[in-house]
Formats: sequence, C-alpha cells, structure tokens
Amino acid sequence: MDTLEAIRKRCSLKACISEKPVEPEKVRMVLDAARLAPSARNTQPWRFVVVQGKEAVGSLVDAAFFGPSAAVKHAPVIIVVCARPEDDVMIDGKPYYLFDVGLAVENMLLTATDLGLVTHPIASFNEAEVKRLLHIPDDFRVVIVTPLAYPSATSYEEAAKERLSQRTRKNPREVIYYNQWGNSEPG
Amino acid sequence: MDTLEAIRKRCSLKACISEKPVEPEKVRMVLDAARLAPSARNTQPWRFVVVQGKEAVGSLVDAAFFGPSAAVKHAPVIIVVCARPEDDVMIDGKPYYLFDVGLAVENMLLTATDLGLVTHPIASFNEAEVKRLLHIPDDFRVVIVTPLAYPSATSYEEAAKERLSQRTRKNPREVIYYNQWGNSEPG
Repeated sequence: MDTLEAIRKRCSLKACISEKPVEPEKVRMVLDAARLAPSARNTQPWRFVVVQGKEAVGSLVDAAFFGPSAAVKHAPVIIVVCARPEDDVMIDGKPYYLFDVGLAVENMLLTATDLGLVTHPIASFNEAEVKRLLHIPDDFRVVIVTPLAYPSATSYEEAAKERLSQRTRKNPREVIYYNQWGNSEPG
Repeated sequence: MDTLEAIRKRCSLKACISEKPVEPEKVRMVLDAARLAPSARNTQPWRFVVVQGKEAVGSLVDAAFFGPSAAVKHAPVIIVVCARPEDDVMIDGKPYYLFDVGLAVENMLLTATDLGLVTHPIASFNEAEVKRLLHIPDDFRVVIVTPLAYPSATSYEEAAKERLSQRTRKNPREVIYYNQWGNSEPG
C-alpha cells in the first residue's frame, strides 16, 4: 500500500477485532518497522512485549484494562510498548523516550494498516498490573498498548469506513503557521 | 512509494541538503500527513511553524543551532514542531504530548521520504531562542525541528545509500519479547 494511503487509512479500531490468529511473520513485520524508527542519538529506547494466545491476552486485559478498552480481550495479539526513561535523553525537562517511542509506534500502526490489520493505541491501563504480569523491570515504563488483529469485517477498508468518515482534525489554520506563530498564510 | 519501503528508506540526512526550493504543495502534504496521526483522546497537541526563505532560515539557525546541526542552514524549509503539555494527557507522570508529537512527526518523515525529500529530526537547540524568534507562546514547548529539502545528490536513494548501509539497530532479541519480559522465543 502507498505510504500516504496507509497514513490516511490508519485509524483506531478496537471495536472491529477478529479472533483469527495473526501470522507470526506479520507480527514480526510490524515490530521490525518499529525498530527502524529514528531516535535521539540512536538510543532506541523501545522494548516490545508481544502478548499472544487467549489465556495470556485474557489475563492481561482482565487485570489491567478497564472501560471500553476491555474490548481488546478478543485480540489474538496485544503489543505492550515499554521504555526506560534513562536510556534516552532528557533535554530541558523533556523526556525524549516518549517522543522516540511515538516515532516507533507510528511505524507499527502504519505497517499494520498496510497489512490489513487493525490496531488501537491505548494509554490508559493499570501500569503496575501490566508490569507485574509481564515481569517488566521497575525502571521501565509502559507507554502504550495496542491490539494487533484481523478486522471482524470483510476487509480493513470495510472495518475502517465508518470510523474514517467520522474522523475529526483541527483546521490546518489552527495548527500550521508560517515563519511566525499565528501566521496562517504561506506567504 | 510502498509504506514498508518508505519506513526502510527513511534516514536522517542533514549532510545532503540542496538549496532547491520545495514546492508549497509538498510542504503541505508533509504537514497534512502529520495532522492525520492519532493522539490521546484526539487532543492533537501538535503545532507546526514552517520557517522558509534564506533569511528566515538563516536567522533561526544562526541563533539557535549549534555544532553539526548548523548544516541545516542551507535548507529551504525548516519545520519547527511545538506542543503545549497541558493540551494533552499526563498519565502516571508520563506527559503524552511528547508521545503524540512523535506519532505525527513519523508521518512527516515518511511522507517526506515518499516524496524524495530529506529530513533530519533535531532535538538539541536553543529552545528559548527558537521561541523568541518565532513568537512561540511561553507555555508551548519546542519538541523537534527538521529541515525539509531536496537531496543534494541526484536522488533520495543516492543520498541515502551510504547512511543506510551504516545503519545500526539493536538485535531483535534485545528489544522484542514474547508473553514475558526477557523471553525472546515466539513460542
């Protein structure tokens, strides 16, 4: 799939998860894409725990997810993305491990979209429980968790259609300025 | 360009910047891709200041960039990515504005690669000077800055060849675990 098409089609679809297993090669392609992201001074602070199988996924979701996020319980795979803040730079109070993990996660999400798989990044979970269950060391933080699954619809496009039609983004004039803050004219 | 190809070919190329102007439509495509990234609760904390023109770019680089980063002085466009931490969520001490900006920036980098343009995310700069010159409000942080330029080589591929051949990434076994921290076997 074309890069710009994947960027446009990527959306969060925890409501459209099929229990159908995801081939290990596809899980690996998604993670390899994440590894290719840049990072400050090439620190590569990211670590990925692939939780797979009904029992492991069920235990994780029951213990650490709440509200609508519990819908990911039926996913064949959940990817837990962690990082140790000290492994990356801190500049003027900005901890870049979060930024760098963001770069890697977008590669994951786009690769999944390209492969016709659904994702849904989730930032709200019981971090202590996730760490306890997966034996994640104390000094690592769990940044984000996403299911990786085939769509329950006949195709990714079918699964994403309604969600994409409802997508909202700020107007470009609100977020893009030229040469000076607040100037929305390219000039 | 195929998504996975763009992910593989993206690399940081501040040493290969041409002064050739970048068409406004291409700048806009790169920024539109950024806007399509997901964010926690759809907060879209990102703001982009497009610095363009010899004079504006030169003043910015002279005032706020140091060391090897000064090489971006010849870029026709520099994109300054900002965000206000309070616009996004803070969960268990993790300020998600940095993560969300990372998602958006990876879309920018991949779209630029797809268009044959070079980028180079830079996190070290004099933030106070960047904010002063561009009139960025006090409560916003400058997260990352990247040049956007045509390559000085005959093509992106030519410009990236050497850099990609030297790329280093941690071994998958160091960063990917299965069902439990430290377990490198997919099982």
